[in-house]
Amino acid sequence: MGVVTELKSLTQDDLLSGCAEIVGAAHVMSGATDVSAPYCKDWTGQYAGIPLAVVRPKSTQEVADIVRLCCAHGVSIVPSGGRTGLCGGGVPVSDDTSIILSLERMNTIRNLDADGRCMTVEAGVVLQTAQDRAREDGLVFPLTFGAQGSAVIGGALSTNAGGSNVVRYGTTRELCIGIEAVLPDGSIINALTGLRKDNTGYDLKDLLIGAEGTLGIITAAVFKLSPMPVTRTTGFLSLASLSDAPRVLNALQDRTGGGVEAYEYMPAAAVEVICREFPKIRRPLDALAETGLFFEVASSRKDDAEAGEDGETRLQRLVFAALEQLMEEGVIIDAMIAQSEQQRLDLWGMRESILEAITANGSAYHTDISLPLAAIAEFVTTMDVAVAEMGFQPITVGHLGDGNLHYALSAAEGQDWAALPLDQAKQQIFALLTRLNGSFSAEHGIGQSKLDVMRKLKQPSQLVAMRAIKRALDPEGLMNPGKFIPETNDAAQKT
Amino acid sequence: MGVVTELKSLTQDDLLSGCAEIVGAAHVMSGATDVSAPYCKDWTGQYAGIPLAVVRPKSTQEVADIVRLCCAHGVSIVPSGGRTGLCGGGVPVSDDTSIILSLERMNTIRNLDADGRCMTVEAGVVLQTAQDRAREDGLVFPLTFGAQGSAVIGGALSTNAGGSNVVRYGTTRELCIGIEAVLPDGSIINALTGLRKDNTGYDLKDLLIGAEGTLGIITAAVFKLSPMPVTRTTGFLSLASLSDAPRVLNALQDRTGGGVEAYEYMPAAAVEVICREFPKIRRPLDALAETGLFFEVASSRKDDAEAGEDGETRLQRLVFAALEQLMEEGVIIDAMIAQSEQQRLDLWGMRESILEAITANGSAYHTDISLPLAAIAEFVTTMDVAVAEMGFQPITVGHLGDGNLHYALSAAEGQDWAALPLDQAKQQIFALLTRLNGSFSAEHGIGQSKLDVMRKLKQPSQLVAMRAIKRALDPEGLMNPGKFIPETNDAAQKT
Repeated sequence: MGVVTELKSLTQDDLLSGCAEIVGAAHVMSGATDVSAPYCKDWTGQYAGIPLAVVRPKSTQEVADIVRLCCAHGVSIVPSGGRTGLCGGGVPVSDDTSIILSLERMNTIRNLDADGRCMTVEAGVVLQTAQDRAREDGLVFPLTFGAQGSAVIGGALSTNAGGSNVVRYGTTRELCIGIEAVLPDGSIINALTGLRKDNTGYDLKDLLIGAEGTLGIITAAVFKLSPMPVTRTTGFLSLASLSDAPRVLNALQDRTGGGVEAYEYMPAAAVEVICREFPKIRRPLDALAETGLFFEVASSRKDDAEAGEDGETRLQRLVFAALEQLMEEGVIIDAMIAQSEQQRLDLWGMRESILEAITANGSAYHTDISLPLAAIAEFVTTMDVAVAEMGFQPITVGHLGDGNLHYALSAAEGQDWAALPLDQAKQQIFALLTRLNGSFSAEHGIGQSKLDVMRKLKQPSQLVAMRAIKRALDPEGLMNPGKFIPETNDAAQKT
Repeated sequence: MGVVTELKSLTQDDLLSGCAEIVGAAHVMSGATDVSAPYCKDWTGQYAGIPLAVVRPKSTQEVADIVRLCCAHGVSIVPSGGRTGLCGGGVPVSDDTSIILSLERMNTIRNLDADGRCMTVEAGVVLQTAQDRAREDGLVFPLTFGAQGSAVIGGALSTNAGGSNVVRYGTTRELCIGIEAVLPDGSIINALTGLRKDNTGYDLKDLLIGAEGTLGIITAAVFKLSPMPVTRTTGFLSLASLSDAPRVLNALQDRTGGGVEAYEYMPAAAVEVICREFPKIRRPLDALAETGLFFEVASSRKDDAEAGEDGETRLQRLVFAALEQLMEEGVIIDAMIAQSEQQRLDLWGMRESILEAITANGSAYHTDISLPLAAIAEFVTTMDVAVAEMGFQPITVGHLGDGNLHYALSAAEGQDWAALPLDQAKQQIFALLTRLNGSFSAEHGIGQSKLDVMRKLKQPSQLVAMRAIKRALDPEGLMNPGKFIPETNDAAQKT
């Protein structure tokens, strides 16, 4: 044992001094110190691992040099961004075997092309910083989600993050029109052209996006920017039936020319738990229906902001026209439209407090699933009954416009969480999801937490193809090992 | 020799009878007959190759069975669609070594989900058929280009086709939200869920799209559908300078809430050649400026179709407002707005006759390049002077909104095409393109015709990654060999 330890520590010293030569000693922190501690733990607190070192390169070339060095030492690399991931993707799976390569010093916004409406940012730029920069030029970098004050571009790309306005602007992948990356062999891919059309070879950009650092490290990206909305109409609806939700969405879209920026499912149970945990938050409607919907429509057309004689803007009148007809048809039971910026912010505040409310409410199981829009109602209706019978209280919210649900389970009143049959509930959730052609991972990633469901539910032919691609680009398996791709298929899988 | 020929023909017989067992004898045509002849030749007439057989499966399972059979025989496969490709991607590179696998019998529209606004179509469905089907439900399948009456879904996906409305709706890749495909090992990937968010693994969909059949055969796909525009405003502009084109585009976009559906570059030289070759076509403006632009703005907002007291629709008034300001600033010299559907169709007719006009005009060299919007003016201005000095007349059109130019060269008046220094001109075009971060292949594909420029200009690190992926998924190299990926890097390339 003594000899092995010595050998290892010698190798480790070599590695650390090599890293220090590349990035400077100040940016290499050995693994188990107070300074490196925040890098070793997942945001959820569920996953942790001690690296050989935390290394913080400042440039793409430094990232490439670190990757080459690690390959020479057979040391694996865990890329790290804003550390807001929810699936354990950014921490080592075992102690003292990897370095954590933090992109946080690569935080330069390299370029903003206002006429071409695109922006080139490095992987370590915080989302909010990128949003602010675009706003300075009167443009929108639309990627928006709760963790945007800490989450960085590289992490958003690597998990193909979504958020609350995907219905309007698309996922991170759809916003990105070019990347720069370091491949596992240390070579640099430069595809930062920002071209709207470029068919010169395989789509390496989209292969690396959403790959959670298992095929290489994204160091920078070009994003499309959109014109700034000049007006918004925000409100809350009670629907007679969840199955009407796609129809209501389409009516709002058509009337406003595709202006829906948020279309969020907030059923009575979700609003109740929010109002119970945060008594200052007011119910948007006195009587909450089972199917509550929070929506926001925006327009960048200046004339949509013009108020008529009644003081309502044109956009608001368009929204009213869409809703009126659906109310007459009995599809919408009740509707509330924010009449001031404060009312609008209150509605957003309610939407954004749901995760905290569920957490405060007690133990809970969270999911990040998606379904075809036409299958959402069947899923929720069937599942709500099934889990209630097991003693759970389902608390669902979701980006309904994208078919993305965060279907969560808590203990029903009087039930002991620890005694409830969670495995059975999960099994039923995933069985129904599979039958309805849903996805078990919509916008949070796979990381470590969903490896098991990936092994069970992902089509075997696709897993085989994924492993072949992984082996082709990372034959030694050094890029973010133990994440994303299960090593074996489930024996029970059909082939 | 006799023995070799016998052995080969025995193997070929085995193969053909095996294929016939799978798809039926009526759908296996041996290579050199009148019936199979149309499959053996490229649309351009430049590329041709005789297959062992043309095989026409009807189902995904039949495609998979054919792929397995061919693998067992070591026979390569050339997927074939509507045969409208421009780069020789759909014909064998050598005689008697491959089968042509035609997808034309897989021509079922499997499903149209009007509420979910998506449509599942097989690879052999003709584009126009898909467009018509969507229209029946009041929706738009937006993919639009000249060959849409013959081109099929599979070919559009495999080349990531573009067309004239990418500025509004995106490329084929961006429209597609799920695929079914047969991989080179004969396994079937089913990812036809139509989910708007699905992060379960590597993005195999986007890897297969644009891969020109070199990684597998796409058999079906799900596409997003859009609401049908209720009104359009179409016109022609003369700009003082091409460098103002992005500004004019942004002004139109902002004023109409992103309504621009076409934004096409039509300089005086292009309009002149059209009017010379087709005397019935009228100039859109009496005095043509060097920078001519054809545009169309559309809206699906019903109120945009309402005419005011002056008879102009709201959309038209918005367009006027955008143009007026730019005319006052001297950015736009002259503008024409179609005042009838006939005038609108005339403008489209002019745009769509350009390829025919250039062909009728004499020998020409065509390109399919793209550039960052900000670099378009520099490219055109510089290049136009350079090629004119060599004796060429440049005739450019292009989807300017996407930065996509079809920069073409013909002989200047009095010049003999055969004597002009075309290689020198090409060299200068690609050198400037490279310096300005442009792409040598925007929407037509690589096929055989751009293998050489791919070898010279594609970043070596990306070629290495591409070859690794190709080997991983198609180790025997049986899928559409001799296309898309050059076998060696250029010795002169930097690494």
